[in-house]
Amino acid sequence: MILKKFGEIVREQRKKCGYSQEELSFHAGLHRTYIGMIERGEKNITLLNIEKIAKALNVKIKELFDEL
Amino acid sequence: MILKKFGEIVREQRKKCGYSQEELSFHAGLHRTYIGMIERGEKNITLLNIEKIAKALNVKIKELFDEL
Repeated sequence: MILKKFGEIVREQRKKCGYSQEELSFHAGLHRTYIGMIERGEKNITLLNIEKIAKALNVKIKELFDEL
Repeated sequence: MILKKFGEIVREQRKKCGYSQEELSFHAGLHRTYIGMIERGEKNITLLNIEKIAKALNVKIKELFDEL
């Protein structure tokens, strides 16, 4: 399912950056528990928040959808 | 701004398919006025609806973000 796959990619990319969930949440301006929910595919994330996460991970949005 | 750019790409891809907004809304299972709002960048679209639109346009999600 798309939300779950997207969450796995965010987790992968976050680890590549060497960030904890807390660090990613800080850089993205999102709440730490929200990042956890995204990574577990529990939230139907919006495009504005996808953009925030991509910026914080220093990747283009399309890179978050490469495998999808 | 991301929502506006995304909307322009949806419009472009929709026209490539030869669909009216009404036809796209039918194939995506979304409301016609919602498609109009997306194309004008007036809605912060969610990932599940991005997926519906990509499927209806017969493209991969990442293709909707190629230029972003």
